Amino acid sequence: MKGKDKRLRPIWLDKSGNTVKIIDQRQLPHSFVVRELRTADDVIFAIEEMLVRGAPLIGVTGAYGVYLSLVNPAGESIEDRCLVETCRKIGTARPTAVNLGWAVDRVLKKVLEAGGKKERIRAARVEAAAIAEEEAAKSKKIGENGLKLIQEICRKKGKGPVNLLTHCNAGWLACIEYGTATAPIYEAFDAGIDIHVWVDETRPLNQGARLTAWELGKYGVRHTVIADNAGGHLMQHGLVDMVIVGSDRTTATGDVANKIGTYLKALAARDNDIPFYVALPSSTIDWRLRDGIGQIPIEERDPDEQRYVTGRSEERVIRVLVPPESSPAANFAFDVTPARLITGLITERGVCQATEAAIRNLFPEMVISKDAE
Amino acid sequence: MKGKDKRLRPIWLDKSGNTVKIIDQRQLPHSFVVRELRTADDVIFAIEEMLVRGAPLIGVTGAYGVYLSLVNPAGESIEDRCLVETCRKIGTARPTAVNLGWAVDRVLKKVLEAGGKKERIRAARVEAAAIAEEEAAKSKKIGENGLKLIQEICRKKGKGPVNLLTHCNAGWLACIEYGTATAPIYEAFDAGIDIHVWVDETRPLNQGARLTAWELGKYGVRHTVIADNAGGHLMQHGLVDMVIVGSDRTTATGDVANKIGTYLKALAARDNDIPFYVALPSSTIDWRLRDGIGQIPIEERDPDEQRYVTGRSEERVIRVLVPPESSPAANFAFDVTPARLITGLITERGVCQATEAAIRNLFPEMVISKDAE
Repeated sequence: MKGKDKRLRPIWLDKSGNTVKIIDQRQLPHSFVVRELRTADDVIFAIEEMLVRGAPLIGVTGAYGVYLSLVNPAGESIEDRCLVETCRKIGTARPTAVNLGWAVDRVLKKVLEAGGKKERIRAARVEAAAIAEEEAAKSKKIGENGLKLIQEICRKKGKGPVNLLTHCNAGWLACIEYGTATAPIYEAFDAGIDIHVWVDETRPLNQGARLTAWELGKYGVRHTVIADNAGGHLMQHGLVDMVIVGSDRTTATGDVANKIGTYLKALAARDNDIPFYVALPSSTIDWRLRDGIGQIPIEERDPDEQRYVTGRSEERVIRVLVPPESSPAANFAFDVTPARLITGLITERGVCQATEAAIRNLFPEMVISKDAE
Repeated sequence: MKGKDKRLRPIWLDKSGNTVKIIDQRQLPHSFVVRELRTADDVIFAIEEMLVRGAPLIGVTGAYGVYLSLVNPAGESIEDRCLVETCRKIGTARPTAVNLGWAVDRVLKKVLEAGGKKERIRAARVEAAAIAEEEAAKSKKIGENGLKLIQEICRKKGKGPVNLLTHCNAGWLACIEYGTATAPIYEAFDAGIDIHVWVDETRPLNQGARLTAWELGKYGVRHTVIADNAGGHLMQHGLVDMVIVGSDRTTATGDVANKIGTYLKALAARDNDIPFYVALPSSTIDWRLRDGIGQIPIEERDPDEQRYVTGRSEERVIRVLVPPESSPAANFAFDVTPARLITGLITERGVCQATEAAIRNLFPEMVISKDAE
């Protein structure tokens, strides 16, 4: 985040070095609550229950989970076998974002290469911090690369605000700084471009209405909260110039798993000739996968997240039941937008088409694994 | 509605003949409240505030509004000039559904043709009741015509339930009996077909989660409430066999204005080769219009309907604020699904393609007015 609270991040290592602090994102925007994570179990809970969420952030949280499992182990000492098992649990706390397993594995590898307990703790801390800094740096680059697209739209449009539409929260709350989808928005705002953001509320957990609106409001970016149902109508009437969303997992061929409902916006953008961009750090790319719909696991969460809505009534934050008590609900957390509907991917290395060749061209060092071929 | 409460309708003339009773649909499913409408102003309030909603029902409510303006006039007597003005107000209480103005005009015409006060009252009562009975009869026919489509899907599929997806509430609550989109569902259920309905919650006012789920549950139809965002994912994975929705206004060329978000489902159905049907009585057809996106007025409602969600907390029905207090919201009530995305229209006279020729073929007596040509 920038501005008054410019040093605020959604996760940080406590000064003591014994705990990790996070913003409890379930409570936003009505309460700002910081929680302490001490153990691997705390980390798993925070990820599963979505105190933290967003692919880059759950990756970093998982990375710090490895660190905490060494600093505050469940037993007296931590054997390699237990450590690996704990890391497996952290890395699979949620199934869809590829960053989580990737970040946990990366820290675990450094730990297993290190010597004694002290060295291992140090290795985990250094690697987790490195991942966090890298994500922040990638977001900064995504912002700069995406800015050019917004400038181009602004130039072509000539007058009036550039109207962007975003789904869910791919902001700094989901990342470390700047965000992914929001990074170009913040850059455009800083560059003095007249922008306005349509914020999909993003049912069932309302990350758009609760988190993106809060972020944009604090930054001073003009925005309007809308029902997830509204985007098609706005696009039909020329009220959206560009759609920009994040990604929880991207295949090597450019399919994108993102918050449920993203696919519907991509369809509407295509039907109305509106550019649809996905902003993502390369950490969300799963180089093994080639078929998003067939291969990316889609998390199914507690149906009560769909049946109940949390909000503020008078001065309390409470939840209300919407459908009849006896009606069942389903709660799929993500959907997959096929590459064919995506105008481009905004990465830390530049903007490219959502095709295997274009992605490989930006990341030539990434080898596509055999099982994907 | 059928079953135990089979005589229940969402509107009826009180035995006294002096008032009209309605189910207050804002309170469902957590409270079942019947309200009394005495005057034209009561009727306007009930339509504007959506105590009653759904194109056929607001048409019938408007029709009874003309009757109440004669039975319980604001002043001593009611001059033609005042009556016409009152009818204009009732007929424009909400802009999108064409049934409202159509039904009011139809009753007003009969009233103006009648003799003294008594005859006028009688004419209004007879005509309003006739419209109600016609809508019920049309719904019944829509059910029979739509049943054949579901039977055909069931036959082709061979095993497992037929999975239908519907948006908003086009049930008996929105009509008089049976509903429009739900009429074929109830017919299929009665015919012993194994069906399951995905119920879009339908933000912002949750008519799906609150009303359709309640209706289907009371009838015993298996259903699951989902976020409006979920339909695309379900369709990608073969979990939807048919989409069926209602219409608030249909152009002579087959474009359909329906609850906001309908267009997104039509796009997803097309992208996944799933049949997308609109069930509508001919009373929703606006024979003057040829371009839905350009010509159908889309109501914009109070943004607080988007910002707040109403539901049950403990034993009370309350509303909670979701986004930050300072974030503005927009609330477009409908969108337009272009005819090209619609597999067919299920009308009281049969199923036809969403084309001008096919619609004219079913309703040859309807003259397309000059200003539309």
